[in-house]
Amino acid sequence: MAQINDHFLKLQAGYLFPEIGRRVAAYAQAHPQHKIIRMGIGDVTEPLPPAVIQAMHAAVDEMGSRESFRGYGPEQGYEFLRQAIAQHDYAARGCAISADEIFVSDGSKCDCANILDIFGDKVRVAITDPVYPVYIDTNVMAGHTGPIDATGRYADVEYLPVREENNFEVPLPRQPVDLIYLCFPNNPTGMVASRETLTAWVEYAQQTGAVILFDAAYEAYITDPSIPHSIYEIPGADKVAIEFRSFSKTAGFTGTRCAWIVVPQALEGRASNGDAVSLHRLWSRRHSTKFNGVPYIIQKGAEAVYSPEGQAQVRELIAFYLENARLLREGLSQLGWRCFGAVNAPYLWLKTPGQTTSWEFFDQLLSQAHVVGTPGSGFGPAGEGYFRLSAFNSRQNTVEAIARIQDKFRS
Amino acid sequence: MAQINDHFLKLQAGYLFPEIGRRVAAYAQAHPQHKIIRMGIGDVTEPLPPAVIQAMHAAVDEMGSRESFRGYGPEQGYEFLRQAIAQHDYAARGCAISADEIFVSDGSKCDCANILDIFGDKVRVAITDPVYPVYIDTNVMAGHTGPIDATGRYADVEYLPVREENNFEVPLPRQPVDLIYLCFPNNPTGMVASRETLTAWVEYAQQTGAVILFDAAYEAYITDPSIPHSIYEIPGADKVAIEFRSFSKTAGFTGTRCAWIVVPQALEGRASNGDAVSLHRLWSRRHSTKFNGVPYIIQKGAEAVYSPEGQAQVRELIAFYLENARLLREGLSQLGWRCFGAVNAPYLWLKTPGQTTSWEFFDQLLSQAHVVGTPGSGFGPAGEGYFRLSAFNSRQNTVEAIARIQDKFRS
Repeated sequence: MAQINDHFLKLQAGYLFPEIGRRVAAYAQAHPQHKIIRMGIGDVTEPLPPAVIQAMHAAVDEMGSRESFRGYGPEQGYEFLRQAIAQHDYAARGCAISADEIFVSDGSKCDCANILDIFGDKVRVAITDPVYPVYIDTNVMAGHTGPIDATGRYADVEYLPVREENNFEVPLPRQPVDLIYLCFPNNPTGMVASRETLTAWVEYAQQTGAVILFDAAYEAYITDPSIPHSIYEIPGADKVAIEFRSFSKTAGFTGTRCAWIVVPQALEGRASNGDAVSLHRLWSRRHSTKFNGVPYIIQKGAEAVYSPEGQAQVRELIAFYLENARLLREGLSQLGWRCFGAVNAPYLWLKTPGQTTSWEFFDQLLSQAHVVGTPGSGFGPAGEGYFRLSAFNSRQNTVEAIARIQDKFRS
Repeated sequence: MAQINDHFLKLQAGYLFPEIGRRVAAYAQAHPQHKIIRMGIGDVTEPLPPAVIQAMHAAVDEMGSRESFRGYGPEQGYEFLRQAIAQHDYAARGCAISADEIFVSDGSKCDCANILDIFGDKVRVAITDPVYPVYIDTNVMAGHTGPIDATGRYADVEYLPVREENNFEVPLPRQPVDLIYLCFPNNPTGMVASRETLTAWVEYAQQTGAVILFDAAYEAYITDPSIPHSIYEIPGADKVAIEFRSFSKTAGFTGTRCAWIVVPQALEGRASNGDAVSLHRLWSRRHSTKFNGVPYIIQKGAEAVYSPEGQAQVRELIAFYLENARLLREGLSQLGWRCFGAVNAPYLWLKTPGQTTSWEFFDQLLSQAHVVGTPGSGFGPAGEGYFRLSAFNSRQNTVEAIARIQDKFRS
């Protein structure tokens, strides 16, 4: 029989969200009379902006006529979309990122997994705890880790524990690493990084030669004008950082699939023979060999996000979810619960009441308030005793969920 | 600096199609007066079937309304699409492939690259020569090969040379391998595999424990009713084969992006400790961790391919391209050129006239007839002296290309 990738066998059985799905399905089957409100998976609920809908209809029509039909597009993405991104998301913020440094893709989850292809199989990675599970699972699959231990940590990974007593600041690695995953605004804690914090990270990477993998999927939720939206707002970041961005949470594209990755021309890695090698060139080769571009129809929809109407509609969408976040934070704070995030991010990170574990609280919230959230421990051992609630919901559901929780948990 | 994947440095500089693009662009710039007919890249030219257009419009509208909006879909693909595939492409042909063995994806290029993730880093692969370049390049990236030699072959790969004197039959490997890539109808030669040939391959895999990676992206072009469309038409294939299928060439989806992979429940690989491991389980974990599903709109478009109207429209589309293929084969045979394929496939594989090399013929065809094709040597050393022409074009262009070639090359 063919040899398998043994590293897969190190993975824990259940990926977090399928496990939540199983528990919710079991509860729903046993209690069909209860209306469950889902605030677990960070999935948008509001329809696509009208400008996007209109652009996609037009693109579908183009695909129906021989004269305007599009076959294979450029693997890197159409110039019209990459130019729009370069102008609105980078030039407008003073970042010198050009369209040819942008690679359009079908999702940040895919990108942050696929990027590992261009790095060596012995790279050492630094990952926050708690963390978006895909970062760690994909490194396990790639063989960058040893086995998992009883606390849920994999050997040979540099964990960066994020703790309430340090205001959820990410500590610097204690020993050298090749890759550092940073996510701001953070999933799951909802915390942001100041310009000073990001500058310190860029300087650390410059000094140590590490590459920062900067996940800014939630940048659109930043309300504080002093907080950078892109790591390239920090001088010198183009020599040390790759950035992941997405239309998923900005424009409701979770089921529509469009994202991008920035791999700057100035960014280099090291070959075994000591040569410096352009990571841009490696990624370009990887992307064009193993990917065939995002559907034309979807890229036209994404382009419409940057039209004046699209921008106004997207701002409205973000404001809507942020109001949910504010209501959640205020409503649950009234119970005396310690609440974090939910100001510059669509996630509320709360300390579970008393000594409740994350999964105990999950079960309590489900059985008593019929509300689904995400156990903090699912994001890593340091997430134990915390819980994530998502602001991605209708106003009605959000208000009802808060009322139910207040009703059942007011002691 | 971060350690890179050194294997990338083994890759040849230019991927075939970008190199063709560069030569054509240079010629077009120097000779703007000539209308170039492109028969190089195998890209469809005719619009999407009306049933697909209609379904996508309806799906776009669904995404514009809160009640019918879809966020994250199942990573594996919506049940409605997997059921349609299972019924029409498998049950209807007597193959016991269930919907849960089908994984919807954004392309066969991606799938045949990504599948390597679940296999060990020491697997030995057998690859035909000539071959679709992605098979080999992705194995180079994964470190399954040694360096390239002067003939263009990578060390540690079992090449299966496909030669005219053997009627382009693929020979069995001379030594044991883990993975065998087979593509029927073949790209680039346009040849098909009979039931007897496929049975011999399945038996060989059963005896040796190899896994067959069966690329059937062109199955819709099979005109001979005795030729299997799926490898699962061969008894026992579900224990030895993974199949790649696509809507790209069947329904004109090259710029719309939808495909699928079948990883049967019965298929197993071997861990280093000797345990048999379900490859279905590994792929499921890989797919759900590193991929986030195909856009809902696109899956609804793909589903419409299976409606009665969609089926009729797709049959018409295939017949149209096959008529181009027939005209090409007949027209070029009249020059005394040896022509292959183009009967059960959209590709004509022709022996270049006289002692012309593939790239010499490419340049002759471009400069004299202003027709772009694909040099056979771009698909591997055994493709030297051959040339691929694609039937994906308008009737007018096809007829004109034939006339120009006949005019310029009639000696």
